[in-house]
Amino acid sequence: MSRQHTGHQVGQQIGQHSSGHGPGPDTSHLDSGPVAGSIAAGVEPHHDTGPAYLLGQRAEGATLTARLWVPTTAEHRAIVRQVVDGEPVNTEMERVVQAPGGTWWQGPVRLVNPVNRYRFLILEPGSATPYRWLHAAGLSNHDIPDATDFQVLSRDEGPQWVADAVAYQIFPDRFAPSAHGGRRRAPDWARPHGWLDEPPVEGDAAAQAWYGGDLDGITEHLDWLEALGVDTVYLTPVFPAGSVHRYDSTTFDEVDPLLGGTPALERLSRALHARGMRLVLDLTTNHTGERHEWFRSAQADAASTEAGFYSFTHHPDQYASWLDVPSLPKLDHRSPELRRRLLLGRDSAVGRWLAPPVSADGWRVDVANMTGRLGMVDLAHQVAGDMRATMRQAEADDGRQRWLVAEHGHDASADLQGPGWHGTMNYLGFTKPLWAWLSDPDPADGLTWLGLPMPLPRLDSPAVVAGMRQCLAQMPTVSVERSMNMLCSHDTPRVRTVVGSRQAHLVAATALFTMAGVPTIFSGDELGARGRTGEHSRTTMPWARNAHGALRADEVEAAGSWGPVDREVLERYRHLSRLRRELVALRRGGTRFLHSGPDMLVWLRTHPQGDVLVVLARSACDELVVPLEQLPARGLDRAWAFDAVEVQQTGGGPGARLRIRAPGPGSAVAALGPWQ
Amino acid sequence: MSRQHTGHQVGQQIGQHSSGHGPGPDTSHLDSGPVAGSIAAGVEPHHDTGPAYLLGQRAEGATLTARLWVPTTAEHRAIVRQVVDGEPVNTEMERVVQAPGGTWWQGPVRLVNPVNRYRFLILEPGSATPYRWLHAAGLSNHDIPDATDFQVLSRDEGPQWVADAVAYQIFPDRFAPSAHGGRRRAPDWARPHGWLDEPPVEGDAAAQAWYGGDLDGITEHLDWLEALGVDTVYLTPVFPAGSVHRYDSTTFDEVDPLLGGTPALERLSRALHARGMRLVLDLTTNHTGERHEWFRSAQADAASTEAGFYSFTHHPDQYASWLDVPSLPKLDHRSPELRRRLLLGRDSAVGRWLAPPVSADGWRVDVANMTGRLGMVDLAHQVAGDMRATMRQAEADDGRQRWLVAEHGHDASADLQGPGWHGTMNYLGFTKPLWAWLSDPDPADGLTWLGLPMPLPRLDSPAVVAGMRQCLAQMPTVSVERSMNMLCSHDTPRVRTVVGSRQAHLVAATALFTMAGVPTIFSGDELGARGRTGEHSRTTMPWARNAHGALRADEVEAAGSWGPVDREVLERYRHLSRLRRELVALRRGGTRFLHSGPDMLVWLRTHPQGDVLVVLARSACDELVVPLEQLPARGLDRAWAFDAVEVQQTGGGPGARLRIRAPGPGSAVAALGPWQ
Repeated sequence: MSRQHTGHQVGQQIGQHSSGHGPGPDTSHLDSGPVAGSIAAGVEPHHDTGPAYLLGQRAEGATLTARLWVPTTAEHRAIVRQVVDGEPVNTEMERVVQAPGGTWWQGPVRLVNPVNRYRFLILEPGSATPYRWLHAAGLSNHDIPDATDFQVLSRDEGPQWVADAVAYQIFPDRFAPSAHGGRRRAPDWARPHGWLDEPPVEGDAAAQAWYGGDLDGITEHLDWLEALGVDTVYLTPVFPAGSVHRYDSTTFDEVDPLLGGTPALERLSRALHARGMRLVLDLTTNHTGERHEWFRSAQADAASTEAGFYSFTHHPDQYASWLDVPSLPKLDHRSPELRRRLLLGRDSAVGRWLAPPVSADGWRVDVANMTGRLGMVDLAHQVAGDMRATMRQAEADDGRQRWLVAEHGHDASADLQGPGWHGTMNYLGFTKPLWAWLSDPDPADGLTWLGLPMPLPRLDSPAVVAGMRQCLAQMPTVSVERSMNMLCSHDTPRVRTVVGSRQAHLVAATALFTMAGVPTIFSGDELGARGRTGEHSRTTMPWARNAHGALRADEVEAAGSWGPVDREVLERYRHLSRLRRELVALRRGGTRFLHSGPDMLVWLRTHPQGDVLVVLARSACDELVVPLEQLPARGLDRAWAFDAVEVQQTGGGPGARLRIRAPGPGSAVAALGPWQ
Repeated sequence: MSRQHTGHQVGQQIGQHSSGHGPGPDTSHLDSGPVAGSIAAGVEPHHDTGPAYLLGQRAEGATLTARLWVPTTAEHRAIVRQVVDGEPVNTEMERVVQAPGGTWWQGPVRLVNPVNRYRFLILEPGSATPYRWLHAAGLSNHDIPDATDFQVLSRDEGPQWVADAVAYQIFPDRFAPSAHGGRRRAPDWARPHGWLDEPPVEGDAAAQAWYGGDLDGITEHLDWLEALGVDTVYLTPVFPAGSVHRYDSTTFDEVDPLLGGTPALERLSRALHARGMRLVLDLTTNHTGERHEWFRSAQADAASTEAGFYSFTHHPDQYASWLDVPSLPKLDHRSPELRRRLLLGRDSAVGRWLAPPVSADGWRVDVANMTGRLGMVDLAHQVAGDMRATMRQAEADDGRQRWLVAEHGHDASADLQGPGWHGTMNYLGFTKPLWAWLSDPDPADGLTWLGLPMPLPRLDSPAVVAGMRQCLAQMPTVSVERSMNMLCSHDTPRVRTVVGSRQAHLVAATALFTMAGVPTIFSGDELGARGRTGEHSRTTMPWARNAHGALRADEVEAAGSWGPVDREVLERYRHLSRLRRELVALRRGGTRFLHSGPDMLVWLRTHPQGDVLVVLARSACDELVVPLEQLPARGLDRAWAFDAVEVQQTGGGPGARLRIRAPGPGSAVAALGPWQ
C-alpha cells in the first residue's frame, strides 16, 4: 500500500522533511469503503505557533513564515493580519500548494514588537460563513477583540530545557525518611505520625502532622525518579517554619534542620546534577510566617527597617496578611531593602540558592498571583522582573538557565505577557478542564472544584475544549510550554479520587504526558494514591525495605496509606514518559484540537518531524473517521493504543483514512508521517 | 388592567423607585392567549455595571451591591467571584426576592484595586447546564479566562458630562464658509472646488480639494446643531498644514489662517460655551507633517533638539513615518523636550488650547493606537498619561472637565484599562458590527469593511451581537460611555451608502442614539449624505440662502453634492436626539442584550428610573413575545415605534407580555415601568 500521495506535493517553499518513516501497521483487513455507524471529523482550518506552522528563527527583527492549512478546495482567500506598532496590517497570503484535501497558504509574521499578535482572515465567498477569523481560541464568524490573537515574542530569554522536562513534585516531609532521619526530635509545633498513617484531612492537624521525610531521603531514591523518566524535582518549601508545609517560613537563610539542613540540600542538588537532573525550589514572596525573623524585628520596633517590609495598619498587631490569616503577614515590595534582601542580587534569598553550592535550577513562587498586590498598589510584575534579573546573574555566572514558575490558580495570562514569570501552574488551562471532563460521575462527597464552591461538574468535550482553548489562547506559547501541567498537587484532592477509577486515571495520564506544558507528577500519583483534600493528598510513599530493613530505592510495598498500590498506573506513567521523550512533537509541537466527542477528545501535536495524534475516550464512543488528506498527513506511522482504544489506517493514497475506535475508555498516541 | 403585580414584590433591600408612571397604551384589542406564528424571547440571567444592577457610590474603598436576575424559579444558587489583590474570592449571594418570573440575588463588589473584576457563578443542579458563568460577554458553560469579567474602576476622574453628550463631527473645510471666507486666497497646495462639487474619491486630489469652509462658518450655524440636539462639536484638525485634512500639521501654535486663524477658533469656542455647548479638537501625537517646524529643524541639523523628536535611521532622509508615508514623520516620545512641547503642562500644545481663551473641552487623538509605539518601544500609555496630567491642570484652573478620546480602529481595550484615554472611537464595538448587520445586501462596488481587504459582509444578528459583546466586555463601562459611537466618519464611506436605503439608515440612527457611548454624527449624515470612501464622504452641507444671498443657519437646499437631501432622516435624528435626552437610561443605563433575530436585534438599557427597550428590525421578522415577569418589568410605559415596527403589551399581572411585531424594517424605543 503506497503512502506516497500521487497528487501535488507541498514543495520546498514551506519546508522540507525527510521521509524516513517505516511502513505503517498492516490494515489490509480493513476496508476503505464507507463506515457504518461512524462519524467524520470536521477538520477545520489550522495554524499554531509551533515549529510546523510558524517557520524561521525567532529573533527580534526576523520575518517568520506563517503556514495556514485550509481543508477545502473551494475558492477562497487568506489574509494574515498582524498588529504592528499598534496598527493592524493585512497581508494577502500566498497559495503555496493546492493539495487534494485542501490548500496550504503562507504569509509573513514580523517580529517587531515585544509581543507580536496576528490572526487569519479566511474568505470563502458563497459559503455559509463567507468570512471567518482563525485565532488562537478557534474560528469566529464575526469580529473579535485582539485578546485571542496568536502571539509570538521577539525575545525569548527563557530556559530552553523546560519544554523537554518531566517534573516531579515532592512534599519533603512525605517522600522518604533517610537512614538518619528517624533520629531527629520533633519540634514544638509537630505531631509525629507513623509513616503509613493516613494524613489528616484538613486544619491545624494537617499542618502539624510530621512524618519525618527529609532531603537525604529524596537523594536516596533518585533511581525511582529516573525510572519514571523524571528529570526535574520540584520541592515545596524547605526553609524552617512552624508547620509541615513550611509556607510560613521563619527565615530564608538556611534549610530546615528537620529536613537535614542546608548540607542535605547541597547533597541532593549535587546528586541530581550528577545525573543531569534539575532542582526547583519554592519561595513565598507574598508573605512570611509570623515567626519569620523579619516580622519579629518589625513587630518589635515600628521604626525598624523590617517594619517597612510589611503593611501595618496599626503596629504591632494589625497588618495585611494572606487571606487575612494573621500568621502569614504580607510583604510590602515597595521597600527597597526588602527587594535587596529577598529578590535582587546574589546575596538575596533568590540569588543565594541559585548560587553554588546548591545552584538550584529554578524557583516556583507561591501565590504569585497575589504577590506585591494590595489595594491600589500592584508590584507583581516588579517582583517577577527582580527575580528574573537575579536569575540572569546566576545564568551569567554558571551558564545554566533557570526556570521561574508562578503559582496561579486562575487566569495568569496578564502576568505572562512580559519579561516576568516563565510560566504558571496551569490549573486553569489544564487541570481544571481535565477534571471537569474526567470527574467521577458519582464523586465522593465534599470534593470541590479547585476553589469553586461547587461540587465537581462533569462537562462534555466541546465545553471542555472551548474553555481550554480560550485560556491557553491568552498565553504566549513559550509560557504554556514552561508551565506545569498537573493532574493534582499538594493543594488539591488526588487525581485518582477525582476521577474515581483506574481507567479514568490512565486516560488522565495520557493527557498529562501529551499536552504542551511540563508534565508534573505529584509524588504518589504514579502509584494511584488517593486523597480527598490537599492536606489528605499529602500521602507518604510506601517504600519497600530490603533484607536489612533499609528502604529500597526501586520498589514499593503493595499498599500505601490510601490502599493498594496500582502498578498498572505506574507502568503506564513510565511508558508515557518514554513516549514523550521519544516523540519530539509531544514536547515541542504546536497544539491542534481536532475533535471533541462528547466523550472523546482528539488533538494533534504538530511538528515538522511528524504530527502526533492523541485520543482520549472517557467512555464508549462512536467510531471516528478522519480523512488523512484533510489533516494533511501522509499516513499512520506507529500507534500506541491503550485500553479500549484502537487507531488504524484504512486505504492509502487519496482515500486513506484514520479510524478511531473506542468501545470503552482508553487512550492512544499515534505518530503520523508528515504530509510532505 | 392592573400593572401591579400581585406576587412577591422586590423590596427595599434592592432599591426603591417611585411608581409614578402613567397607564400604558390601550391594548384591550389584543388577547393575552398564545400567539400563533410568534417566538418567545429566551430571557437569560442578567447583570450589568449600570446603576440598576450595581448599586452604591463608586469610590475607592466602597463596597457596592451587585444585583443579579436569574429568570427561573427552579432551585439554584448564585455566587459572585471577584479577583481581589490578584486572588479570586467567592461569595455566596443573598436571595433577596423570589419573584414569580425569577429570582433576585445580591452580593458584594469591593472597590479595592484600580480595576475591580468580577463575574457570577450560577449553579442549577439537575439542569442541562448545571454550572454557568455570567460575565460581561455573556454566559459560558465552562471555565473562562478573566478578560471578559465585569469591570468597575475604583477611581473615576473622567468627565461626567460625556455620557450625556451628543457630538457632531465637522471637517472644517466642508461645513460652511463664513461671510468672509470666500475672499481668502487658496494656498499653494490647494485646488479650489465649487461648494456643491462632488468630492474626489481618493488620493492627492482629495487632500488638495479646497472648498473653503471655515471656523466662523461653523459659528454662524450653531442653531442647526442645537436643533439637532447636539451639544459637543468635534473638529478634525485646525492647525496649518499642507492638505485639506490637516493631519500633516506644520505647527501646533496657531490655527490655520485659511480657517480664520486663532481668533476664529476663539470666536467659535466662545459661541459654543455661551450656549452650554462644548468643543473637542483633534491632535496628531503620532506624527507631524514633513513641513512641520520641528521636522524642518530636525532635518536641518542632526544635532538639534528637534532631531530627537523623530526616529531617524539615516539623517536627514530616512526616518520612521506613519505607515511608511515619508510626508508624515513619526514622533519619538522618548524625547523629554518633545513631551514638554507637545504634551505636558500649560505651555504644551495640549495645554495651550485647553487654556483660555479657546478653553477647548477635549482632545481627540489621531491614530492613538500607534502613538508612541515603534518596535520594542511602547510609550502609548505615557502619552495618554501626560495628556491626562495636562488636562487635570486645566480642570484645576477652570473647574471644567475635559474629554480625551483616542482614535483606535481595532481593539482599544488594552489602552483603556488605566488612567489614560477616557474612550475611543468605537469602530470595533459599534460601527463595524452595525455595518455588518445593516449592510446593503447588494453593496456598491469597492466598499470595504473598515480596513479589511474584503467586501462588506452581511451577518445575522447572533454573530453581530456575539462580536459586539466580546469587544465591549473588555472595556470598562465608563470607557464605553466616553467613547464615540459613529455610523461613519471622514475616514469611511457614508452610512447611507453602506446600508443602501433610507429604511436601513433610519434603523441605524436608532442604534446610534440608544446604545452606550456618545452618539457622534458626521456632519451631513442627518441629511442622508452619501459617499463611497472616506475622502468621497467629505461632502459639504448644502445650506440654503436667504433673500439677501447669505447662507441660512437653519435651512438647507433640496439637494447636496450627493443628491437629494433626506428630510425624513433629518427629522428622525432630531426626534431620536430628543428621546435620548428625555430617557436617562439611554444615556447612563447599563446594556442588556435580550434577543437576536437573525433579522431582529432587541436590547434594554437598564436604569433604576425604568429600563428602555430598543428594537431594530432590518427586514420582516416573526413576532417576538417577551413575558414581562421574566425581564422583570412592571409594564410598558410609553413606546415610540418607527416605520414597520410595533411594540405592545398584552394583559396585566402575571401573564403580561410584550409583543414585538416587525412585518418590515423599522425600529422602536419603549420605556418600561420598573418592576418594583
